[in-house]
Amino acid sequence: MFKQNYSSKLLEEAVEQLATLPGVGRKSALRLALHLLKQPVDNVDHFADAFVKLRHEVVYCPVCNMITDDGECPVCSDRKRDRSLICVVESLRDVLSIENTGQYNGLYHILGGIISPMDGIGPNDLKIKELVERVDAGGINEVLLALSTSMEGETTSFFIYKKLMDKPITITAIARGVGFGDDLEYTDELTLGRSIENRQPFKV
Amino acid sequence: MFKQNYSSKLLEEAVEQLATLPGVGRKSALRLALHLLKQPVDNVDHFADAFVKLRHEVVYCPVCNMITDDGECPVCSDRKRDRSLICVVESLRDVLSIENTGQYNGLYHILGGIISPMDGIGPNDLKIKELVERVDAGGINEVLLALSTSMEGETTSFFIYKKLMDKPITITAIARGVGFGDDLEYTDELTLGRSIENRQPFKV
Repeated sequence: MFKQNYSSKLLEEAVEQLATLPGVGRKSALRLALHLLKQPVDNVDHFADAFVKLRHEVVYCPVCNMITDDGECPVCSDRKRDRSLICVVESLRDVLSIENTGQYNGLYHILGGIISPMDGIGPNDLKIKELVERVDAGGINEVLLALSTSMEGETTSFFIYKKLMDKPITITAIARGVGFGDDLEYTDELTLGRSIENRQPFKV
Repeated sequence: MFKQNYSSKLLEEAVEQLATLPGVGRKSALRLALHLLKQPVDNVDHFADAFVKLRHEVVYCPVCNMITDDGECPVCSDRKRDRSLICVVESLRDVLSIENTGQYNGLYHILGGIISPMDGIGPNDLKIKELVERVDAGGINEVLLALSTSMEGETTSFFIYKKLMDKPITITAIARGVGFGDDLEYTDELTLGRSIENRQPFKV
């Protein structure tokens, strides 16, 4: 009688909206909606408020394009970090991954995506001009490219390289190779091949 | 420097809230939050509004406890359905599954859960008294129990059976057995054993 129409227009609308989330189908959306229905009203208000506020009030760091609450982000305003080194990444998620390693102490530059003609994203849609301006402003010794090795990532890296190659800085890229703890047997051929090509002096 | 604290309190709060959803971890929550950040403001407002409204405005059918927008639910108010037959289910999701079969034309009674001492859910937390009252009000010929075969489900079925056994109605349960299209080889022993015990006259 109500084939996926549910018994309530409100429920239908909530399911519809939850199903717009990436990776959430209509079945999961219904599960989430019924979960929310069981929560106290205050919790649900709070829940909705959290990302409405996020969407309305969040700003981007004017220097590195990181999501932040106001003004310069915590990384750019941290005077203890190496301000001569910029790591170029696609998104905030990459920043979080790198921060979690505890191995990086420089600044970041978040492009907000990678060049992808298929998705209609060109160089002008990314914060590449801003990166060049940061380098031109001086004080930068090294730009570390940490983009993916997909075709789009490589294209973006190359595009940035071309823009920066004549500047008085070092341009580096993160090391690629067989992951620590990975078996050679299960490593893809491209990675293994490149890791042999790019072999390094053995360190004891 | 910000180990899972992110660069923005707003983002942190949104991730925190999204991670309260069942089956959503902090990594997925971050992905969802960043997805919402990319959406137009209106969409995000609309998104939040959908389930805030759901939570605030939804009502439950006074007869069968189904989620509905106001008054009697579409099933209870449908005069074409068999009003002498009530199918007892745990939740709205079961109703949707049964409706999708197109094989059922009676009414429903949604318990809102099953008896589960572990979760502190007793008979009084469920709509069992209301079911007995519906039966007592007359006009009901059959109550079809469609609860799960878990220990909690069986306990609940038995509890309802005890409450209704003296009433002038038939109490039935949905058939259990080897699923259509299932291989015997891969059917669990309990199901297969019971399906032999409960064998039925062969129909041509």
